[in-house]
Amino acid sequence: MTRHFENEIDRLKKMILHLTAMVEGSLEKSVMAIINRDVSVVEQIKAVDIEIDNYEVEVEEECLKILALHQPVAADLRFVIAVLKINNDLERIGDLSVNISKRIKDLAPFTNSKVPFDIDKMLSIPMQMVKDASDALIAWDADKAKTVLKTDNTIDTIHKKAYKEIKKLLKQEPDFVPFYVSLLSVSRNLERIADHATNIAEDIIYMVSGEIIRHQSEEE
Amino acid sequence: MTRHFENEIDRLKKMILHLTAMVEGSLEKSVMAIINRDVSVVEQIKAVDIEIDNYEVEVEEECLKILALHQPVAADLRFVIAVLKINNDLERIGDLSVNISKRIKDLAPFTNSKVPFDIDKMLSIPMQMVKDASDALIAWDADKAKTVLKTDNTIDTIHKKAYKEIKKLLKQEPDFVPFYVSLLSVSRNLERIADHATNIAEDIIYMVSGEIIRHQSEEE
Repeated sequence: MTRHFENEIDRLKKMILHLTAMVEGSLEKSVMAIINRDVSVVEQIKAVDIEIDNYEVEVEEECLKILALHQPVAADLRFVIAVLKINNDLERIGDLSVNISKRIKDLAPFTNSKVPFDIDKMLSIPMQMVKDASDALIAWDADKAKTVLKTDNTIDTIHKKAYKEIKKLLKQEPDFVPFYVSLLSVSRNLERIADHATNIAEDIIYMVSGEIIRHQSEEE
Repeated sequence: MTRHFENEIDRLKKMILHLTAMVEGSLEKSVMAIINRDVSVVEQIKAVDIEIDNYEVEVEEECLKILALHQPVAADLRFVIAVLKINNDLERIGDLSVNISKRIKDLAPFTNSKVPFDIDKMLSIPMQMVKDASDALIAWDADKAKTVLKTDNTIDTIHKKAYKEIKKLLKQEPDFVPFYVSLLSVSRNLERIADHATNIAEDIIYMVSGEIIRHQSEEE
């Protein structure tokens, strides 16, 4: 490996970690805003998302540049391809965080309304999954990535329960329709974030160990 | 370009076209089943989706093999990377088609209920977008791909109207909650399919012309 190539791979590592940090920050802000019913951060989250979008394009261009100029093989090739795919999932998590923040406005007036599912877990687990997936990426650690997969089922179960209960409550309490519809949207966006964290973890496992574990559980 | 490499690129083209055909078929079946309220095809759509999932893994492995063995450059490299990304979007469209078909059961009893948005366009346009994106891929034609982008806004507008109207109707007609919630889910899944078709078109444009047009309109 030439010094120049080594530098480029290092630079790519730093770039994907920077993107991960931006996306984690945006998700955390969005989740905290839901907890505190704080509409003031929505514009801020949108602004960060534009940065995330631009940075995703830069990361992809860096991957293509490395592939074209250095034609990496073996572990290096797998790393670049993993970054290319993970980049895409991170950008989507950014979009979904924006979606979540857009629901705060509709939720804000209903401060004391009943939430018919475990919203604490629904808010905290996907965020933890993104953090764990990002740690696994930094450490290039398939075992760490496997811990992410274990929690995806919990999220799917909570979201299914949310969907079922909210359908019931919409019928019983028509005055709370905006609240329940927004709540369902938040739950769905978080469930999709968990799916993207799962994709990232699966890509890490595949790229590190060659083991394909995709499609063993799919999104509802 | 060696004969062996040429053969591998041809094989990859055939593979991605085969996947496109499978996904198009699954989406069409799912849309027709919604129109005809036909629950009998749900299991069939699920079975095809397992094939799609397995084939997606094969396509990705073929891409990685070509990158590792032939270290393509220039247009060939861009083609392989485009396939790698498009592969992922196609597989997601397959999943979303399954999601749509799962809603038929809840919609079936409400044959004469009012649909508060242009469901014909919502059912036909995303399917056309997937077809156009796949034609653009076969022809490696950026102009053709650009036609896909023009229709995405129409779908976003219809989905936003659906969301707004359904929120109103849920309040007014609590007996129809399962119908409206399922309808919203179908609309959302179709809107996401349109997004994936847009991703595919954007990737084709980027790969053919080097023009980055991503993130000019994001999913709601």
